[in-house]
Amino acid sequence: MRHFIIASMLTMMSFSNCVAADIALPPPQKTGGMPLMEALSKRKSTREFSSDKRLSEQQLADLLWAACGFNREDKLTIPTALNKQEITVYVITPEGAWLYVAKENKLTQVTDKDIRDYAAAQDYAKKAPLNIAIVSDKELMAHDIFAGTDAGAVMQNIYLWCAANEVGTVTRGSFDGESLAKALGLKESQRVILVQTVGY
Amino acid sequence: MRHFIIASMLTMMSFSNCVAADIALPPPQKTGGMPLMEALSKRKSTREFSSDKRLSEQQLADLLWAACGFNREDKLTIPTALNKQEITVYVITPEGAWLYVAKENKLTQVTDKDIRDYAAAQDYAKKAPLNIAIVSDKELMAHDIFAGTDAGAVMQNIYLWCAANEVGTVTRGSFDGESLAKALGLKESQRVILVQTVGY
Repeated sequence: MRHFIIASMLTMMSFSNCVAADIALPPPQKTGGMPLMEALSKRKSTREFSSDKRLSEQQLADLLWAACGFNREDKLTIPTALNKQEITVYVITPEGAWLYVAKENKLTQVTDKDIRDYAAAQDYAKKAPLNIAIVSDKELMAHDIFAGTDAGAVMQNIYLWCAANEVGTVTRGSFDGESLAKALGLKESQRVILVQTVGY
Repeated sequence: MRHFIIASMLTMMSFSNCVAADIALPPPQKTGGMPLMEALSKRKSTREFSSDKRLSEQQLADLLWAACGFNREDKLTIPTALNKQEITVYVITPEGAWLYVAKENKLTQVTDKDIRDYAAAQDYAKKAPLNIAIVSDKELMAHDIFAGTDAGAVMQNIYLWCAANEVGTVTRGSFDGESLAKALGLKESQRVILVQTVGY
C-alpha cells in the first residue's frame, strides 16, 4: 500500500514536471497606439520594477507578437539571415517559464519552477514578475555576430513596445547562461543571448 | 613655375581629399506618423530598388535619427551595453560617403568616391542610391554577440522607419568589409557589421 502511494505520487510528480501546460493568448492588437517616432523618442532603460504589478494577458500577447511574431504567413516582425528564424523567446515568471509559440499565438510551459535567479544577476530583475529570454540556435545561425543582430532586433522591438505602452524594460547580457539553458530545456545548440526584464 | 603649378594642384587635390564637407540636416520630425504596431505589421525586406528616386533630406534626417540618434542628452534611440555608444552609421551614395554625426544632426563627408561596389555583393544594392553602413568599434565593444545586438537594434529601427514610410529596405551581412572599412576611413578597431540598402 505504501509503495502504491509513493508510486502514485511519483507518477503525479513526473506528470507535473513533463506535461506542457499551454496558455492560449488573445489575438494581438496590431492597430492604433503610439506612433513609431514617438516610441523611439521615449525608448529608454529602466532598472526599478514593481514585484507584483503585472502585464495583462492582452499586453503580453501584444508584446510577444511585437518582439518576434509572424507578420506574414512565413515571416517575422524581425528579419533573420536567410529567413532562418533561429530566434525563440521564453517568458519567465515566478510561476515558471513558457516558450512563446509564435505561429499558434500560445505559450507552452517548459518548467513550473521559479528560475528567475538564473535569468538575472541583479536583484531588481530577480524580483520582477516578467523576464523574457531571447534564445538563438547555433544549428541555424552559427555566426556570433548575426546571432547577435537578430536577437538585437527582438530586443529593440521589446524596447519600442514598452516605450509605446509606458512599461519599463531593460536588457541584460549577464546571467547564468548554463543553468538558464538547462532550466528552459534548450537543445545543446541553443543559447540565451539576452534576458530582458519587462514591468512597471 | 611648372613646379609651383604642380605643387598648387597637389595642394588642391589633397585638400579636396581631406577637407570634410559637412551637410547640416533638417531637424528630425519626431511626432505623428504610423503607429508602432502597424509598422511592425508592415516590416519586410525588399530586393528591388529604383536607381534614381531618392529620399528627401528631411526623410534622411528622420531615418538617421530613428536609426541611431539621440533621444536624450546622452542616450540613443538604441540601447548599448553600459551606454558605450560604440555604433556609428555611414551614408553611402553615388557621390561618396558620410559619417552621421548624431549629436550635431549633420553628415561629415569621408570620401567623394562612389564606393557602392564595396558595400554590396548584389547588383540591386550596388545600383541603389542609398546604403547605410552600421559600424561597431571593438575598442568600446569587444564581444561579437553584443556588437551584433546593438547593430541589430539600429537595423530594426531602419526597418521600422522604412515600413512606416513606405520605403524599401534590406539588410546584408555580405560585403567587402576590408575595402569598405578603408574607404570609409575607419579606425583599426572599427568594423562594418551590416550594410542596409534603403530606397524606392
